[in-house]
Amino acid sequence: MFIGIDGGGSKCRATIYSSEDGVIGTGVAGRANPLHGLSQTFESIQMSTELALKDAGMSLSDSKVLVAGLGLAGVNIPKFYQDIVSWDHPFADMFVTTDLHTACIGAHRGGEGAVIITGTGSCGYAHVGDKHLYLGGHGFALGDKGSGAWLGLKAAEQALLHLDGFAEHTILTERILNHFKAHNAMGIVECLAGQTSSVYAKLARTVLECANEQDHVAKKIVKEGAAYISELARKLFEVNPPRFSMIGGLAEPLAPWLDKDVIAKLSPTLAPPELGATYFARQKFRNNKT
Amino acid sequence: MFIGIDGGGSKCRATIYSSEDGVIGTGVAGRANPLHGLSQTFESIQMSTELALKDAGMSLSDSKVLVAGLGLAGVNIPKFYQDIVSWDHPFADMFVTTDLHTACIGAHRGGEGAVIITGTGSCGYAHVGDKHLYLGGHGFALGDKGSGAWLGLKAAEQALLHLDGFAEHTILTERILNHFKAHNAMGIVECLAGQTSSVYAKLARTVLECANEQDHVAKKIVKEGAAYISELARKLFEVNPPRFSMIGGLAEPLAPWLDKDVIAKLSPTLAPPELGATYFARQKFRNNKT
Repeated sequence: MFIGIDGGGSKCRATIYSSEDGVIGTGVAGRANPLHGLSQTFESIQMSTELALKDAGMSLSDSKVLVAGLGLAGVNIPKFYQDIVSWDHPFADMFVTTDLHTACIGAHRGGEGAVIITGTGSCGYAHVGDKHLYLGGHGFALGDKGSGAWLGLKAAEQALLHLDGFAEHTILTERILNHFKAHNAMGIVECLAGQTSSVYAKLARTVLECANEQDHVAKKIVKEGAAYISELARKLFEVNPPRFSMIGGLAEPLAPWLDKDVIAKLSPTLAPPELGATYFARQKFRNNKT
Repeated sequence: MFIGIDGGGSKCRATIYSSEDGVIGTGVAGRANPLHGLSQTFESIQMSTELALKDAGMSLSDSKVLVAGLGLAGVNIPKFYQDIVSWDHPFADMFVTTDLHTACIGAHRGGEGAVIITGTGSCGYAHVGDKHLYLGGHGFALGDKGSGAWLGLKAAEQALLHLDGFAEHTILTERILNHFKAHNAMGIVECLAGQTSSVYAKLARTVLECANEQDHVAKKIVKEGAAYISELARKLFEVNPPRFSMIGGLAEPLAPWLDKDVIAKLSPTLAPPELGATYFARQKFRNNKT
């Protein structure tokens, strides 16, 4: 039996999968992004595993019979990969790869292809033959252009510039003030200072709403983000992936803002990343045995 | 006797001042920014105080005879002000205001006026009559446009976009790779992921150097930052401050990039922020007695 775990900037999802019975249990816990804290990552993996075991009617000690596949942000950086694989994990065996790789395996149900993830963060990945292409995904606030956190950050920046008298008035400012139940710039800062990317990402829906209502500032932000995502897609197309999908909470609302050539190549995702992680675990486990 | 403490994004400076003898001891410790951690802020205040006492040839328990003036970022936000004043401090008495206020008092040696701080962060402040005008200073990565951390973030963003093939080649990318002894985008991310504003601010000199060498990308970043600082200055001029100064590690290298009308009004700072904090403590202490 396999457990696939998909760590993300706001949630960690676990799925227990057996080759005979398919999915037999799932669990969801808090964020699991090694770039933003190892102990929280391990806690969320542990918690989502326990919930999945419970859901499957298994006992907590049964984690020892599961072969785990983990898809985690940042593990293409050697330091973070080492941090994760040195973990005293509760599984029979554990295989670690990037969240992009497991998402891609899932989206194309084990096949090759390309994916762009736009949720709390953003990044692109393609796997074709021997080629593994990673693009973007440098994390908040350094990269992740076009992501939920990026949209939220840009919108908060613009609202603060407006409230300080440096940028034009727009409905976006009012919506952001309402979102935080704040009355002025100070109130926004109080809600955002020192906060994680997922808090910023909660603003993304508001930004997209305002853009759809033709708010100039929101439209400019969304267009800039979407233009980057379109460029990201075209870079992935250069390695000729047989299939291309978009994943994450913003994939759907962002799609209409992408360039037409990108929209034309978009295919639906066939399975979620956590299921991709079980395919990955199974593949690795079998390769190790042979 | 008074102790003035200036907390900042990278350093905390303390100065012991007596009305008869002037400055009798100074101490410098690590960062003290309530927005980025209270315990670190208190530690840095404590440490800089101990070093200043030592420097003055006093014993550590002598903190109990000092009246303290603290200039700290973020204390114009009620929550953070409360956090600081509830501290079980080691002083005879403690008065807390923003780092902008004490910097302004220092720059104009007790008089009214306006200041812009451009160091790790950026912000503007003017004190004229009953008016206290606070502008910007919303903290990294939300605000602080034109600051050292902002210049560093923008430069790292552009370098990563270039390394991913999304932005033009420029010498800035090479300099940033050299700065971190990195070989690729992943190396830069490894050095910056989860890091504080002061780590980003260390890139600011490199950005300014490249801009002075006519690097297009660096010039665009520096011009955008300087344009904001010029606008910030003009907003401050609206309350007719009798004097205007710029403070912080970037005040000097940024000055040539500011608009001419702003440069024309620039006066030198007369005393450092930590001395401003002692003036503030003295003022408050005397007002409290009368």
